[in-house]
Amino acid sequence: MLTKDIAEFINGELIGDGNVEITRVADISKATINEISFIEKDFKPTNASCVIVRENFIENLNCPIIKVKNPKLSFAKIAQILHQNNSKTGWHKSSFIAENSDVRASFIGAFVSVDENTYIGEATQIHDGVRIGKNVSIGKCTIIYPNCVIYDNVSIGNDCVIHAGTVIGADGFGYVRDENEYVKFPQIGKIFIDDNVEIGANCCIDRGALGETRIGKGTKIDNLCQIAHNVQIGQNVVIAALTGISGSSVIEDDVILAGQVGIADHVTIKKGAIIGAKSAVFPNKIVRAGVWCGVPVQPLEDYKRQNASIKKLERLIKNKKL
Amino acid sequence: MLTKDIAEFINGELIGDGNVEITRVADISKATINEISFIEKDFKPTNASCVIVRENFIENLNCPIIKVKNPKLSFAKIAQILHQNNSKTGWHKSSFIAENSDVRASFIGAFVSVDENTYIGEATQIHDGVRIGKNVSIGKCTIIYPNCVIYDNVSIGNDCVIHAGTVIGADGFGYVRDENEYVKFPQIGKIFIDDNVEIGANCCIDRGALGETRIGKGTKIDNLCQIAHNVQIGQNVVIAALTGISGSSVIEDDVILAGQVGIADHVTIKKGAIIGAKSAVFPNKIVRAGVWCGVPVQPLEDYKRQNASIKKLERLIKNKKL
Amino acid sequence: MLTKDIAEFINGELIGDGNVEITRVADISKATINEISFIEKDFKPTNASCVIVRENFIENLNCPIIKVKNPKLSFAKIAQILHQNNSKTGWHKSSFIAENSDVRASFIGAFVSVDENTYIGEATQIHDGVRIGKNVSIGKCTIIYPNCVIYDNVSIGNDCVIHAGTVIGADGFGYVRDENEYVKFPQIGKIFIDDNVEIGANCCIDRGALGETRIGKGTKIDNLCQIAHNVQIGQNVVIAALTGISGSSVIEDDVILAGQVGIADHVTIKKGAIIGAKSAVFPNKIVRAGVWCGVPVQPLEDYKRQNASIKKLERLIKNKKL
Repeated sequence: MLTKDIAEFINGELIGDGNVEITRVADISKATINEISFIEKDFKPTNASCVIVRENFIENLNCPIIKVKNPKLSFAKIAQILHQNNSKTGWHKSSFIAENSDVRASFIGAFVSVDENTYIGEATQIHDGVRIGKNVSIGKCTIIYPNCVIYDNVSIGNDCVIHAGTVIGADGFGYVRDENEYVKFPQIGKIFIDDNVEIGANCCIDRGALGETRIGKGTKIDNLCQIAHNVQIGQNVVIAALTGISGSSVIEDDVILAGQVGIADHVTIKKGAIIGAKSAVFPNKIVRAGVWCGVPVQPLEDYKRQNASIKKLERLIKNKKL
Repeated sequence: MLTKDIAEFINGELIGDGNVEITRVADISKATINEISFIEKDFKPTNASCVIVRENFIENLNCPIIKVKNPKLSFAKIAQILHQNNSKTGWHKSSFIAENSDVRASFIGAFVSVDENTYIGEATQIHDGVRIGKNVSIGKCTIIYPNCVIYDNVSIGNDCVIHAGTVIGADGFGYVRDENEYVKFPQIGKIFIDDNVEIGANCCIDRGALGETRIGKGTKIDNLCQIAHNVQIGQNVVIAALTGISGSSVIEDDVILAGQVGIADHVTIKKGAIIGAKSAVFPNKIVRAGVWCGVPVQPLEDYKRQNASIKKLERLIKNKKL
Repeated sequence: MLTKDIAEFINGELIGDGNVEITRVADISKATINEISFIEKDFKPTNASCVIVRENFIENLNCPIIKVKNPKLSFAKIAQILHQNNSKTGWHKSSFIAENSDVRASFIGAFVSVDENTYIGEATQIHDGVRIGKNVSIGKCTIIYPNCVIYDNVSIGNDCVIHAGTVIGADGFGYVRDENEYVKFPQIGKIFIDDNVEIGANCCIDRGALGETRIGKGTKIDNLCQIAHNVQIGQNVVIAALTGISGSSVIEDDVILAGQVGIADHVTIKKGAIIGAKSAVFPNKIVRAGVWCGVPVQPLEDYKRQNASIKKLERLIKNKKL
């Protein structure tokens, strides 16, 4: 891709040679010939063949530069073009696909199994060792990495990415106590995952008990997360690693859950709320917009004041004033 | 199944037509013809063909009702009959089973491998991509979902369910520090999992170091849990997601561990104790029956009082009384 | 192996018959004929055929004993000889290995797939269902247990052990917020895992974004851990289960992270620091050597004093002195 085409694609102002060939993105300190990088703030020396910079950038870089509003965002966008993940094609002869399933995938890896009545859209990649159940629907341009397991009755949209080892559709964790044992509450619901969702490796998304578990458009989930039965996640939600969301909780649009957060059952996290790492939201709570921290969560300001109070307490005790 | 047969099965009092055919369970608000649902407390309009209700229920539902002591429990029981997970049968030709293993399973999925000297009982389902080691014993009517890994020398009982991606029998995490490196302590013990145990997806149950890791009858474990070497778990224990239990700890019967709990090594949790979400039990502690919360755990009442004290401290500081 | 050869191997003083055959290690209380065990402190009756003891041990055990400085360490070392994990050999006919890959492994299990341009060294074991990407390098004498997934461009050293279900090389979790959606930041870096590293089951090690994720020689990682993109882990680090390390953090040599620890991004944990279970280190912090606890971490002594202060506060309030 030529520098002039990149400038056009990211809608930036090119200064310098428009005919330099760019094949890869790279870190500013390691970039070399045919590579493009970006600078967010300060000048850094580089051997890149092109650098994306802020509009008010004034340094001289010895290579073509492209001025944009948000260099990191433009860099991410051009990376998606230069590093398209579409090299995998063909269907491996070892895989088994049920005859009455409608599979149009561009890539089916080795040792894949697809059960009956399942639909898989065009340009979708199903990597080695993936298991796909009955009555599953997977859209177009979705990538499912190796050894994922998709149980029956799961629906996944277009342009999704699901990383290796993730399990979608296992039974929710629901039992009714009888005198001397637990009896399983039925876990026969469904899962709907909308377009452009990315799910990390070794996650677990449980099916609804009687209803559905839902993940909205554009939501991003990190590795080793647990999404319980009947959870409703909105659009463009970000969930960091090792976070767990318990049954029937609602996570509205644009929420951010940091790492190792615990959301109990029947909670509502309102649009735009941010929950700090390792925090916990107790059952049935409603958490409004803002930044929240602690176990249980409180507004960030309160959390800081509480910690300051405890520090003051320590000083008072140490100085024998208490 | 006819409404009269259901009433008999759950030992309830049928009011209305006993010859209505019921094929599925459903949520009260979504149930339709041929579906049965339940109401725990208040009346709800429904299109179900039958509803299980409390003995003192007096409303008119326009469909047959069955009165029982515990509607949710009866609903769970009838769901187990109506939604039996036994549709998978046959042995897939792609799978490899060692010749000297005694495998009687009703279902062996695609790309399964079973190593030597292993026994698998009748009516057991081994789903696609499962790996089973040497000298493994798996009972009757057990379901092992896709891509699970069962290492050598593991014993699993009857009527168990193990969800996808779970690993049973990896080495415990034990090393002895030498001058400049860690030397692995031998992890050559076994695992015994009793009947009617359910284990969620992507869990890890480690083998004993020299001894055994044990999970008692009827215990239920949620997704992404870690059970370390030599842990002894009793009967009807409930362990929620992302909880970890360290080496040699003992969890007695009827204990409940909520989500993201951490149990350190050589701990004993006595029969019937409940440990709240995100709590931690420190090494070598013994936790008696009751409800416990916090890091480290304290009785729930103490935990609440402590939180109230801290709030009071904040007020005192804010009002310049401290 | 004869007792005299064991004594020589562990450099100990043999007292008793040097020609007793030893075939296995065992726990002192369960050991029987042909088994060797160890005693750290007090005398314990045993039926072992040989026991490793401290140099100042004076009891009579009715079997040969071997005196050494550190019995547990010597026991671990001899266990490694007696229980060598090298019984698996041969290449299973069902596996697919790309023609231009250079695979010298002693064992390739069933349903393995190895993509192009990959190197696997001598005496390495690749167990059933493992997926290995392009441009991967795996050293000698390494064991990769079933159903692991190694993405493209990952390098793993000699004498490593990677337990089942672990995913190495999934994309890091990095996005740039655009107006109405998140755009993925490129995750095209690499992973270098040095010699003698052990990684537990169902872990996730993410590839670098533009740079590399590194794990140093002799480091041991328990089950269900998350290592994010660009994390740099030193030598002989110990990381217990369910711990997560966020992007670009540095964990220096000989650090110990207990269970369920959370390390935020851009943190440095200095050489030899110990972070207690369930603790959290906040972004950009530098943690020096010593023992640290809490959320956020503080030195252990401070953590204890803080807890004592809160207890005192409770007493003051209870006694109406506050």
